[in-house]
Amino acid sequence: MNKRSMTVLALTASFLLVGIPARAEEGMYLFTNPPTKELQKKYGFRPTADWLERVQKSCVRFGYGGSASLVSPNGLVMTNHHVGRGQLQRLSTKDHDLIADGFYAETLADEIKCPAAEVNILWTIKDVTSQVKSAVKPGMSPAEANKAQRERIADIEQKAEKDTGLNCDVVTLYHGARYQLYSYKRYTDVRLVMAPESSVAAFGGDTDNFEYPRYCLDMSFFRIYENGKPIHNEYYLPWSAAGARDGDLVLVTGHPGRTNRQYTFDHLKFLRDVSYPHYLSYLWRREVQLLNFSERSAENARIASSYLLGVQNGRKAITGMYAGLLDPAVMQKKQREERALRTAVSNNPDWQAQWGDAWDEIAKAEKAHTAMYEDYSMLSGRGSFGGSRLFRIARSLVRMADELPKPSAERLPPYQDASLDSTRLRLFSPAPIYPSLEIESLTSGLSYMAEQLGGDDPMVTRVLAGKSPRERAAELVDGCTLADVATRRKLAEGGKAAIAASQDPMIRLAYDIDPPARAVQKRYEDEVEGVEREAYDKIGSARFAVYGEDIPPDATGTLRLAYGTISGYTEGTTNVPAFTTFGGMYERHADRKGNPAFSLPENWLDGKSKLNLDTPFDFVCTADVVGGNSGSPVINADGDVVGLVFDGNIESLVWDTAYTDHVARTVAVDTRAIIEALRKIYHADRLANEMQGR
Amino acid sequence: MNKRSMTVLALTASFLLVGIPARAEEGMYLFTNPPTKELQKKYGFRPTADWLERVQKSCVRFGYGGSASLVSPNGLVMTNHHVGRGQLQRLSTKDHDLIADGFYAETLADEIKCPAAEVNILWTIKDVTSQVKSAVKPGMSPAEANKAQRERIADIEQKAEKDTGLNCDVVTLYHGARYQLYSYKRYTDVRLVMAPESSVAAFGGDTDNFEYPRYCLDMSFFRIYENGKPIHNEYYLPWSAAGARDGDLVLVTGHPGRTNRQYTFDHLKFLRDVSYPHYLSYLWRREVQLLNFSERSAENARIASSYLLGVQNGRKAITGMYAGLLDPAVMQKKQREERALRTAVSNNPDWQAQWGDAWDEIAKAEKAHTAMYEDYSMLSGRGSFGGSRLFRIARSLVRMADELPKPSAERLPPYQDASLDSTRLRLFSPAPIYPSLEIESLTSGLSYMAEQLGGDDPMVTRVLAGKSPRERAAELVDGCTLADVATRRKLAEGGKAAIAASQDPMIRLAYDIDPPARAVQKRYEDEVEGVEREAYDKIGSARFAVYGEDIPPDATGTLRLAYGTISGYTEGTTNVPAFTTFGGMYERHADRKGNPAFSLPENWLDGKSKLNLDTPFDFVCTADVVGGNSGSPVINADGDVVGLVFDGNIESLVWDTAYTDHVARTVAVDTRAIIEALRKIYHADRLANEMQGR
Repeated sequence: MNKRSMTVLALTASFLLVGIPARAEEGMYLFTNPPTKELQKKYGFRPTADWLERVQKSCVRFGYGGSASLVSPNGLVMTNHHVGRGQLQRLSTKDHDLIADGFYAETLADEIKCPAAEVNILWTIKDVTSQVKSAVKPGMSPAEANKAQRERIADIEQKAEKDTGLNCDVVTLYHGARYQLYSYKRYTDVRLVMAPESSVAAFGGDTDNFEYPRYCLDMSFFRIYENGKPIHNEYYLPWSAAGARDGDLVLVTGHPGRTNRQYTFDHLKFLRDVSYPHYLSYLWRREVQLLNFSERSAENARIASSYLLGVQNGRKAITGMYAGLLDPAVMQKKQREERALRTAVSNNPDWQAQWGDAWDEIAKAEKAHTAMYEDYSMLSGRGSFGGSRLFRIARSLVRMADELPKPSAERLPPYQDASLDSTRLRLFSPAPIYPSLEIESLTSGLSYMAEQLGGDDPMVTRVLAGKSPRERAAELVDGCTLADVATRRKLAEGGKAAIAASQDPMIRLAYDIDPPARAVQKRYEDEVEGVEREAYDKIGSARFAVYGEDIPPDATGTLRLAYGTISGYTEGTTNVPAFTTFGGMYERHADRKGNPAFSLPENWLDGKSKLNLDTPFDFVCTADVVGGNSGSPVINADGDVVGLVFDGNIESLVWDTAYTDHVARTVAVDTRAIIEALRKIYHADRLANEMQGR
Repeated sequence: MNKRSMTVLALTASFLLVGIPARAEEGMYLFTNPPTKELQKKYGFRPTADWLERVQKSCVRFGYGGSASLVSPNGLVMTNHHVGRGQLQRLSTKDHDLIADGFYAETLADEIKCPAAEVNILWTIKDVTSQVKSAVKPGMSPAEANKAQRERIADIEQKAEKDTGLNCDVVTLYHGARYQLYSYKRYTDVRLVMAPESSVAAFGGDTDNFEYPRYCLDMSFFRIYENGKPIHNEYYLPWSAAGARDGDLVLVTGHPGRTNRQYTFDHLKFLRDVSYPHYLSYLWRREVQLLNFSERSAENARIASSYLLGVQNGRKAITGMYAGLLDPAVMQKKQREERALRTAVSNNPDWQAQWGDAWDEIAKAEKAHTAMYEDYSMLSGRGSFGGSRLFRIARSLVRMADELPKPSAERLPPYQDASLDSTRLRLFSPAPIYPSLEIESLTSGLSYMAEQLGGDDPMVTRVLAGKSPRERAAELVDGCTLADVATRRKLAEGGKAAIAASQDPMIRLAYDIDPPARAVQKRYEDEVEGVEREAYDKIGSARFAVYGEDIPPDATGTLRLAYGTISGYTEGTTNVPAFTTFGGMYERHADRKGNPAFSLPENWLDGKSKLNLDTPFDFVCTADVVGGNSGSPVINADGDVVGLVFDGNIESLVWDTAYTDHVARTVAVDTRAIIEALRKIYHADRLANEMQGR
């Protein structure tokens, strides 16, 4: 046995000992390190370099946060309706609401140019780890090292852009253990080709959001142009002739935004036992409050609608994440993984010395966070003061007056030179402020503060000033002058003296409670945020040292490959099949008559008899996705497209921190539904033929 | 200065020292001890004995929980639509829904007999304190004394019924410091005369419930018959010709159900800081859950509707009660009153020895309650297990099997011989059970339990059995056989052996957690309920010793007199005027078009032009009322009726424990609206003439 095989053996033994975390089909893999072995083992499929290149170059980053794919050699891009929605909004006019009414360009000439669109196609990936790391010289302080690395990254990006003409980004992976240079082909002439009506794209509205079975045609089509003509792209995803079946292997490629898979067991327990229950309680009260407010008049319903949708979306998301963390299988798996990693670290004295304390540091931070949770969330958290815009404006004016006289680096982050413009933009936004909604929100926020901190809490008595929440809210809002942008500007220009002299009750409130609010904010930053940042850097390094690139890095908004199986699931004794059909949509429409979320446009009602009602409509699979994956193509082993990811079920929301395929699923539109609808309902044969290569 | 004036002086000094609690217009007064001095001093009005007799004998107890009044010499009774609703329901047929469609008897012959109605008129009041107290002989144990008093009360009632032919009740006042014999004229032939459509009676539905300004014609009319003919009653409330004006003195007479005005400061703090916030949080989540469930289908909406209404009503009530206790003025007044009373007690060594520890005992009980709050409410509270009916049935079966073999006195209260019939009635009720709602409720309840107790709590892990809340709920409900009444009966007959052998998952769950659930229930009874009962008896005795009958006793569901002023109020800088008008109702109807709670029947839409739109519709006053006062007449100093109480605003809900007239108000229908609607919309001149004495 030579030395080399010893090493291999030692490594193997070490892996056996540590155990690569059993991850089911977990993983948003880098294209530079695809799950070849797993795919080979489980599905007998070995993606070749050509396969990977074709798929990579068929994927499109749509705008800044969405996924999409090329589905013809003529620049045709498929994404979700909800990803393209911003473009539809911008193209809509008073007389033509493209979101509600949909759109189809009968001919190429009818395709409409989107005023501010941008799509990017990832062309090359290059490891630049050593280049970035070599920027750090011995003896540099952490701040100097950070600065040197940031400068080096900027250099690399600039040089690459100059050399290639591509759009270049250095991506930090594994908490800085790896750096990759991603170079994109960027296109800015993007035209709208087709979008269905939003009632079909988002059938079931908020009621069905995150639910399954589902019946959404959440699609839209755009085309990439260059020099006024459609591009001719070598790489694209051919349309699968047969579509997918239950049990099939599928692969999902897209741009997952952010995951927190390295959260420690103690951190997850904090989320489960402190943060999520509190947040849920806040969301329930806010939802009930907004619903009641909305019921009082049509105008109320209008001004509260976007807040209400946000709250309902949040409530579903947190409910799902919470339920996931209550699943003992999820928590036990996390605990096993963590024990294995800590054992591996503690078996290596160097590692132990560098990173060994990180888990206990997180535990300490979460303990500190728990102790300050109510104070922090009531005084500084996002939902504090019921989300009153006037209060936020008042606080911003008070703080700006305090901060601006200081040197930029010593100011609170929003008031440092780099952020000041956007802070001012928000502060002086002329967006209307509705006193009735302000009073309602503030009443709720003040009552919530008392409920959380207790009626005798000094901060509560100070904020309520001897009045009931509703009275105090009405007094603060009715007396507030800050709805007027000119008044805000004047106060901002007047600085500290103007704030001190202001009799505006909201300014006085923000001013009075600023010292304790800053104090708890600082405690949060010092004892929680700062500690977490440092400890997770250590854990990231430890994970990379132990597992290297065998575990994909947390999502970073860049192109990843996930795989899984098309598979229904069981809830209690109820079987939820993998596929739905058009027929199911019509049944649900009939059952929920009168509920506007389940209404259908005329063409769908009239066209029912023309459709094959057994056409597979939506389906679920176990591929690992997260926000940002919307619009991702679902492809089969041949690289043909079989679906279009648009959601996860509520049980999948825990994937933010922990993957499980027990009942959690990714939800996609079936490509057969897309073709059937295009041909029979929209008479869009031009488009269907193009995708089907006819 | 003679001895007598000394005594008077000493008494006066003692009152000055102790201070009769400053009570604004607080008070639900006994007719035997009306607020003569206060009325004389504030309004220059001195009700005579004749005035009081006429008013008393014009008041009607409607059924068991409602108030009403005689408004003509021919037995015409006015009450609320929502008080008469049960009768309307019983009189409705498949083809004629009297609640939705309303009813008017064109002639006397058209008046419809209510199948199971009963009204009572309080005829005489007699103090029987010494008779009841003399039943207790020296040397009796508390239990013997209690039994002797109960027997004496039964004797008094029986004798009085025999002597007078009236319906007689001994009422316990001041926690047993006073006993009064109330004798009622009882009538059982009650006929429906008129009821408007529920959309007008309850205009604004749940949205406007507890709110003000308000636009409800919440009235219904019945007539008392005897020997097949309308009675001719000497006493009734004449219809005021002019109606009432802003600032007028008004008096309210009715049957307030229950108040807790003697709750200690610590008890109120417990409600404010522990009980209400927790309960609100439960209600929010339950409301959101039921709303979401309802949105999923028409059938869901139907089966959840009564639960939803109950939850929304409860949420508003607790919100109002909570906001009231957050008002420092309310709490400070309570504290002042308590200090004064405790000082008076501690200045008298006898009193101090007998009752001095009561306040600290309550404080101890509330501390104990706080410590066990989550455990108790999750395992034994009303909302435990999401209110699942199947779980309650399972628990009842498990406990019945355990309890029945014991002697009755040793069983849990629901299983003692006296309660067993009604427990069985509930247990074997064939009312349908909806699995979908059961799963939804139980999912929510199990999640709530985890949120409150923490994911690692042994009870939580035991109840969830390694599954997520939704999965576990589905498993429990899908596998449960108890929706079938015959299965329940069989299990009940099988006793302990059948329970032990049952594989029903809900039975197994109820069985497994019964020991800890009973343990926390027992702790609650011993450390909270029992201690409170004893301490409040002491405090009641102390209050009576110090203030005698100068403070009216807590409400007991019997006839009381309250007074106040017709008066709007200010919320923030918004003036809420005392009166609304018909015109306001039509404006609100137009503003909330499409909201079914604000729809109006055809006759009101068609009749708009015929109405004087400036007619006063509803109004608010400061008279002290509580649940049970619904249907109470509002009268002026002449004893003429000017209004009909039907609600309190949300701020008045704190009146359960503490009176404040800052913004809290009683809400009534104006009699001018009643006449205008009867004549112009319902063409009910027969009825209007009768009331107006034409």
